[in-house]
Amino acid sequence: MSFNSFGRVFRFTTWGESHGPALGAVVDGCPPGLALSEADIQPFLNKRRPGTSRFTTQRQEPDAVKILSGVFEGRTTGTPISLMIENVDQRSKDYSDVAKAYRPGHADYSYDAKYGFRDYRGGGRSSARETAARVAAGAVARAVMPEVQIMAYVAEIGGDAIDPNNFEALQIDKNPFFCPDEAAAGRWEKIVDAARKEGSSLGAVIECVATGVAPGWGAPIYAKLDSELASAMMSINAVKGVEIGAGFGAARLRGEENADRMRPSAEGSNQPEFLANNGGGIAGGISTGQPVLVRVAFKPTSSILTPVETITRDGEATDIVTKGRHDPCVGIRGAPVVEAMMALVLADQKLLHRAQCG
Amino acid sequence: MSFNSFGRVFRFTTWGESHGPALGAVVDGCPPGLALSEADIQPFLNKRRPGTSRFTTQRQEPDAVKILSGVFEGRTTGTPISLMIENVDQRSKDYSDVAKAYRPGHADYSYDAKYGFRDYRGGGRSSARETAARVAAGAVARAVMPEVQIMAYVAEIGGDAIDPNNFEALQIDKNPFFCPDEAAAGRWEKIVDAARKEGSSLGAVIECVATGVAPGWGAPIYAKLDSELASAMMSINAVKGVEIGAGFGAARLRGEENADRMRPSAEGSNQPEFLANNGGGIAGGISTGQPVLVRVAFKPTSSILTPVETITRDGEATDIVTKGRHDPCVGIRGAPVVEAMMALVLADQKLLHRAQCG
Amino acid sequence: MSFNSFGRVFRFTTWGESHGPALGAVVDGCPPGLALSEADIQPFLNKRRPGTSRFTTQRQEPDAVKILSGVFEGRTTGTPISLMIENVDQRSKDYSDVAKAYRPGHADYSYDAKYGFRDYRGGGRSSARETAARVAAGAVARAVMPEVQIMAYVAEIGGDAIDPNNFEALQIDKNPFFCPDEAAAGRWEKIVDAARKEGSSLGAVIECVATGVAPGWGAPIYAKLDSELASAMMSINAVKGVEIGAGFGAARLRGEENADRMRPSAEGSNQPEFLANNGGGIAGGISTGQPVLVRVAFKPTSSILTPVETITRDGEATDIVTKGRHDPCVGIRGAPVVEAMMALVLADQKLLHRAQCG
Amino acid sequence: MSFNSFGRVFRFTTWGESHGPALGAVVDGCPPGLALSEADIQPFLNKRRPGTSRFTTQRQEPDAVKILSGVFEGRTTGTPISLMIENVDQRSKDYSDVAKAYRPGHADYSYDAKYGFRDYRGGGRSSARETAARVAAGAVARAVMPEVQIMAYVAEIGGDAIDPNNFEALQIDKNPFFCPDEAAAGRWEKIVDAARKEGSSLGAVIECVATGVAPGWGAPIYAKLDSELASAMMSINAVKGVEIGAGFGAARLRGEENADRMRPSAEGSNQPEFLANNGGGIAGGISTGQPVLVRVAFKPTSSILTPVETITRDGEATDIVTKGRHDPCVGIRGAPVVEAMMALVLADQKLLHRAQCG
Repeated sequence: MSFNSFGRVFRFTTWGESHGPALGAVVDGCPPGLALSEADIQPFLNKRRPGTSRFTTQRQEPDAVKILSGVFEGRTTGTPISLMIENVDQRSKDYSDVAKAYRPGHADYSYDAKYGFRDYRGGGRSSARETAARVAAGAVARAVMPEVQIMAYVAEIGGDAIDPNNFEALQIDKNPFFCPDEAAAGRWEKIVDAARKEGSSLGAVIECVATGVAPGWGAPIYAKLDSELASAMMSINAVKGVEIGAGFGAARLRGEENADRMRPSAEGSNQPEFLANNGGGIAGGISTGQPVLVRVAFKPTSSILTPVETITRDGEATDIVTKGRHDPCVGIRGAPVVEAMMALVLADQKLLHRAQCG
Repeated sequence: MSFNSFGRVFRFTTWGESHGPALGAVVDGCPPGLALSEADIQPFLNKRRPGTSRFTTQRQEPDAVKILSGVFEGRTTGTPISLMIENVDQRSKDYSDVAKAYRPGHADYSYDAKYGFRDYRGGGRSSARETAARVAAGAVARAVMPEVQIMAYVAEIGGDAIDPNNFEALQIDKNPFFCPDEAAAGRWEKIVDAARKEGSSLGAVIECVATGVAPGWGAPIYAKLDSELASAMMSINAVKGVEIGAGFGAARLRGEENADRMRPSAEGSNQPEFLANNGGGIAGGISTGQPVLVRVAFKPTSSILTPVETITRDGEATDIVTKGRHDPCVGIRGAPVVEAMMALVLADQKLLHRAQCG
Repeated sequence: MSFNSFGRVFRFTTWGESHGPALGAVVDGCPPGLALSEADIQPFLNKRRPGTSRFTTQRQEPDAVKILSGVFEGRTTGTPISLMIENVDQRSKDYSDVAKAYRPGHADYSYDAKYGFRDYRGGGRSSARETAARVAAGAVARAVMPEVQIMAYVAEIGGDAIDPNNFEALQIDKNPFFCPDEAAAGRWEKIVDAARKEGSSLGAVIECVATGVAPGWGAPIYAKLDSELASAMMSINAVKGVEIGAGFGAARLRGEENADRMRPSAEGSNQPEFLANNGGGIAGGISTGQPVLVRVAFKPTSSILTPVETITRDGEATDIVTKGRHDPCVGIRGAPVVEAMMALVLADQKLLHRAQCG
Repeated sequence: MSFNSFGRVFRFTTWGESHGPALGAVVDGCPPGLALSEADIQPFLNKRRPGTSRFTTQRQEPDAVKILSGVFEGRTTGTPISLMIENVDQRSKDYSDVAKAYRPGHADYSYDAKYGFRDYRGGGRSSARETAARVAAGAVARAVMPEVQIMAYVAEIGGDAIDPNNFEALQIDKNPFFCPDEAAAGRWEKIVDAARKEGSSLGAVIECVATGVAPGWGAPIYAKLDSELASAMMSINAVKGVEIGAGFGAARLRGEENADRMRPSAEGSNQPEFLANNGGGIAGGISTGQPVLVRVAFKPTSSILTPVETITRDGEATDIVTKGRHDPCVGIRGAPVVEAMMALVLADQKLLHRAQCG
């Protein structure tokens, strides 16, 4: 498997840097005959797009996607779908600070250690702009499984969590935080504003739920559905933790509490009823038909105005301040990215299951 | 990538069921010329071996490994290394309960949903016995990178955590819990005993530290070192959460707190000094030279004596009690498995880095 | 993809050396529920088995296969199928000649150049004994597609070709050459005997036909069915050429001669009638429903009694004579191996097609 | 492995159709720090470019390549290199014939059989225009191994072969046939012209030689260098046969004739001298340090003006004539494509060898 590809049968490859002319994704293995146009993809990119509120970076990018191949007369042909998004607002600025010194928490030092040098303009390949390509690919993945609905939302910012009793799915798209709890969204406005004004940043936790996943997707051992999801989510910029179902909480339950008890199918259903979902819709690496649940931890944005101690490329001590247009909480815009990765994993597993089990 | 293989350049495939004649691993892509014998592998298997204390399953398995190929005159030849472990203590018992009804928390239902039937003897392929094959393969991985030291320990059982101030590495092998905190080990004896006697089970959290990892291992995006580790750890039976470095805690830090500040190299070192390690030794998916830190959540053993509601294969309501010889806390024996997976990921990334960057 | 694995969704990994304790294959991704026992595999191994006539090596190997995993109550479970064949007749001989000097045409020099040393006993991993593992895996592949029939035969030995007008499928198993032309088999007896007595060896060409392959298997570009077959066949020991359909002959046809003209389906068929099969059943990398045709060139056995000039490991000039028990024409026993590789490619492509196209 | 990607560590993915807006390749895993600009790639595309003589299609395509990512300040960064070539001369014509009926020898029927429909404009994804993307990627591969020289030439057209005694490397770029034999080039002018005027087409054989390949590249069994090359070459449009070294000719040699005898290193060399190269520079799947030799058979262009019998999509008998601008001998422009595939395989194997053996 190469470094910039993900997936087994339904597989995508992304390319592009923050300050190059464009970025994109090539989606391979897509089933033929699916209706697909740019209009099916653009809404997902719009959700992730920067510059839409004061709580995200002010970089202005239309993120307009072009389909360059793989679609004929409005339907996928089964050949690779090349998606391209041009970079528009690469502000010409002075990168000499970043070129000379390492921003802690960023990939500056590790890229230099690995490759000997780096494209320092806007973080180069390590920029979160790469995630636009995933979101575009994710829209194709959704077309592969219209029976599956995917919803991600921000569950916590700066340690302030939503109240599950206030959960309203319709709220998610009504505030700039993808927050399902109206009251929490109100509080977050204040704390994100404060962090931004203080030249600081905040972390976040995102939850994602996929419903409509048939039982049987995934595979034992190294293609476990949980394993694939963990890999997918941990590949997103700034992510440092992944939980499936009860996650770390499961480590604090007793066996009889954690067991997702089963009852006979309700009338009209061909699937058993589960009395709980601590497993996050997965048992032994294979979907159970319950909603697939993932929680993802985003660290606070590393690019902050507060000076932090660091060293130069020559090894000299210095302090660095990261100017520029940065998200005060990069996790917020992570919600559409988490949704995309969920879709990309599930579409691949759907096809893989079909391969083996017909 | 196939279902039962892991790795890119240094790659292993495992096979075998709980109650088959044997299980094993085939390790491919191993560098030639490394000293390797069964005696190099057996100690790691012995750490994971069941039946060594009353806190693990009483199944008696010598887990004696045989090298069937890939080693000549005590050195690896560069060709596939086939490792086999015979199953010895497959107690002949009555599996009719498990064959007929689904154990909640187990893969019984999901395997049936996927494959149409299952090998119900001892969980078949979903049994934690599969992890013996990983531990054997992990020992080969260690030989690939003698400069790296890997240490995993249990940090929490049933919600009772170690006190970091009491951390003593030498304690880890002195108690049946791989616990670095003597006091905690004492408490755990009581709570694990109690759970076992009550026919219940407990979850656990394992921490793993790898030191000696050179800066530059890993790759951007879909081969991020964090992503590979997440995939590897989440593939272990009963694991439901993975954190790198500060993990979910990072989501509650501010940008300036989370940044791992850098200072010039100490005398005699060619690597910068970092003032913290919230990143877990990884930035932008690439190692920084700091210790690589992973935390892994194990759910409580699903096989318990307490009856739980479930359904039969025919969809009828019933209760199930899982008799047999089970670990009251499957996380305990997870420590050597987590170590093995850390080794397997790092060895692969070492070679992959060498491929691309020389 | 690792070095000793083949396939995408239906994938196998082989291991083992000529003079190790055993060799084997792990077959991953096999559909569940297929009837499979050792008795389904053994007949194919028996066809390839050495020592059955004076025209093959006199090494006596029962090549008895054991299924170690992945089958429960006579059916495949969908988990990895581990197949093992013990080496029995590893004659204890003096390998000092081969250890010290390089046999031209063999992998001796190239293995040393790559790995720094080699297992010189019987050729180690480069021995054609590895192909026993493929034949075993190939038997599993056949179970995946009972609708496909595969037949390989020797079409040429030492430049003496069969006469297509004498082709009788029933002859193939009636002579020690897998020869469909009784007259040719008679001639070959003499020329192979002569070569053997002269301490020389002969090459061969094998043809393989698969019927019952549905239209639509394969994929454009890098997973073309022709490309997969070429890779599979060229991975067999001693193979140096592969043709699909008319092969090199197609390069000498004119466009209108080479075109496989099409006519409407015959009554009762849902597939068009083709008036020729120069394409070997494949167009644009995808099967057409016609028989899939492959031709494979085997070089003469490199282990011969005739002395040939070579060098020692220290670079000194010498002559080498390869004693031991060798096939005077290694291509003969290639027929069951070619069949196995055809089966392994087709089974994989069948599942891959199902993944993408349902 | 996905359908439109090739390679293991150095890996590329192509996308695009004959009549879409553009086509391209994404090259992943390229070592960092290599000098690379569009000017390094364009000359190879120019060699393959159509419309440069009357012996190739008259479609006018500048095939100007753009590097969209992965290069910074003139050097590769180690991140994916996205290469794009715009389609310019997609002549608006009437495709109704091709849309309704199947061209024998083309992928029309097999694509329909697989995907249910197809992009019929200019062959869509099955068009040889895809090979432009390979040639661009191949130029990057060359940068990975400046020590290797690769030369492909046409050795035979319509059954008329070059005379090895007339071989002059400098001739290759002096005629429109990539022909190293001036006399043959003269003859080919006439036969290709005649075929073109008769509305027919011719096949060709291409030979390719890579010198400077160090001993040790490749791997036993399923990553054999011969196997990789066979797969790579057979993936090129219209290719139906591949030979390594003596190829099918080896099947007609005796063991002592076929053996590439070895003599001590010449003074100043650290590699043995070989007295022949029937193995094509490969033994046991691993390079020997000799030139790597491949022969590739191209069938005649299937798009011809001569009417051929076929059927419509509805299964009715008809005749088809393929108008449009087609190569009378598609093999001619195959030479730069074969070179590119040789480069892509070797670069990958160089890095893979470095991964395992340092």
